[in-house]
Amino acid sequence: MAEFQAGTPEQAAFLDALVEARLLIPTGEPGVYGRGDVFERVREGFDALVTRTAAVDGAERMRFPPLLPRRQLEESGYLKSFPHLAGTIFSFRGSEADAAEQEARALRHEDWTEFQAMTDLVLLPAACYPIYPAIARRGPLPAGGLTIDGGGSYVFRHEPSGDPARLQMFHQREMVRLGEPETVASWRDRWRDRALDVLASVGLEPEREIAADPFFGRAGRMLAANQKAQELKFEVLIPIAGPDHTAVASFNYHQDHFTHTFGITMADGGPAHTACLGFGLERITLGLFRAHGLDVAAWPAAVVGRLWP
Amino acid sequence: MAEFQAGTPEQAAFLDALVEARLLIPTGEPGVYGRGDVFERVREGFDALVTRTAAVDGAERMRFPPLLPRRQLEESGYLKSFPHLAGTIFSFRGSEADAAEQEARALRHEDWTEFQAMTDLVLLPAACYPIYPAIARRGPLPAGGLTIDGGGSYVFRHEPSGDPARLQMFHQREMVRLGEPETVASWRDRWRDRALDVLASVGLEPEREIAADPFFGRAGRMLAANQKAQELKFEVLIPIAGPDHTAVASFNYHQDHFTHTFGITMADGGPAHTACLGFGLERITLGLFRAHGLDVAAWPAAVVGRLWP
Repeated sequence: MAEFQAGTPEQAAFLDALVEARLLIPTGEPGVYGRGDVFERVREGFDALVTRTAAVDGAERMRFPPLLPRRQLEESGYLKSFPHLAGTIFSFRGSEADAAEQEARALRHEDWTEFQAMTDLVLLPAACYPIYPAIARRGPLPAGGLTIDGGGSYVFRHEPSGDPARLQMFHQREMVRLGEPETVASWRDRWRDRALDVLASVGLEPEREIAADPFFGRAGRMLAANQKAQELKFEVLIPIAGPDHTAVASFNYHQDHFTHTFGITMADGGPAHTACLGFGLERITLGLFRAHGLDVAAWPAAVVGRLWP
Repeated sequence: MAEFQAGTPEQAAFLDALVEARLLIPTGEPGVYGRGDVFERVREGFDALVTRTAAVDGAERMRFPPLLPRRQLEESGYLKSFPHLAGTIFSFRGSEADAAEQEARALRHEDWTEFQAMTDLVLLPAACYPIYPAIARRGPLPAGGLTIDGGGSYVFRHEPSGDPARLQMFHQREMVRLGEPETVASWRDRWRDRALDVLASVGLEPEREIAADPFFGRAGRMLAANQKAQELKFEVLIPIAGPDHTAVASFNYHQDHFTHTFGITMADGGPAHTACLGFGLERITLGLFRAHGLDVAAWPAAVVGRLWP
């Protein structure tokens, strides 16, 4: 089980200020906050800016709830790489007497695990996951492939933290490209620049770096080193509430990982690759409050014009 | 554990047609679907119509992720009334060797429950739940109380079904009224009529009835009978895919249940009550496709004008 990571004093002060301004609403659990109207208007404004920027790709829109069939998680490799981040969904199994005993224990905040059994569902760990089997069901990809706009899906990461930028559930504004290897690689390269432009256009100071996923355990260090050596993952980072800069966009080039898993090929029988791009909408929103202050009415006109044209 | 409820032939045929038209996207699990662009445009159009209708109430907007602190569920009474519908979130606990064994079993689709431990989070069972403690933290209610627009939160119900109108996770378009008992009662009465008007204005044929929650077990039958006798719950139903009409909006008058639980009072020390109203956005969207056909381009101009003014 993930240990709680306390926030730095700077992170704690930023969180307090966000709560005081009714931008974030505490729930009593770290990394789980409600959001007030102004926070949501900023988040929706940036989301719409990404939509306008992406329009040139002619993407097809799909939306998924934050659930994934457990079988798909089991076959995805996620439990090998990130067992510590996954969330599984359990539900009651038992008699009426069991239900009464479960309720009694729960009221006393005692352990009621034994009445809960694993369901066929887990929490969605990454917004692109449901898209691959959905595309696979349609048959081979047309020449030039497909671009899917996965919208702002909620994803879950079990990493409770006092850092307001590390949420247990957040909106991943996701796009997925499927097609010939060179088609996918050039889409990824184009978006690496576009993502910097979009973030800079709202007054942020993004930096790009070659990155690795937070793989689990000792074996994970080897996976991370390989991923970096092959430059399969890029991140864009901005300052939010120190000490380090925080990743707010991530590009993953999966090569044939998902097309192999789901049997996706090109219509001419050639190999298909995939890549995805996700913006962390809550982190970008927090970065905007950090950069421009908590009072939106005082934000620079150029930023306002980009978010709410 | 909830048993799978097979759909009727009419429900199965409707689901097939929705999938064929790319309005719903199967994931392999019943009651868990992706949604295509047209479905989302209709859902968003109705959501915006509710927002415009609600504007007269001067509601304050709050948005919550579909998670609830487990302690709050334990104290809420939900596990007494609806243990069969609740979803709890588990996560990995163990060593690197345990993680490897978990992964190996998962790959073979064998039981890996023993490596999963209950977290401090559960899935949100009703969109209004996070709102009460958030308001309680602010102190007593001002005279006239407050109206909260909870937006279209995802809520979870563990009831896998072949009926496309019975989803395991769906958007509850929620509003909550907190205030003096007579203030809350008159708000509820006003919305009972408004909800019918809104649904009729998009060409649906809503019926209102006194209802009861799906309480668990034998004791639940008594709770349901009391709830009906006191007329604490109303539902609005429309035809979707038979045999019965389907509830698409629900009004719950909680009296002092939540204000007592969270210690919410009026500023003058008087008692505060609460009521909530939720529209089931996916069900209403399905009802619109049922009423007007799967081709939005052929929908009546009056309906189009209401959804996308």
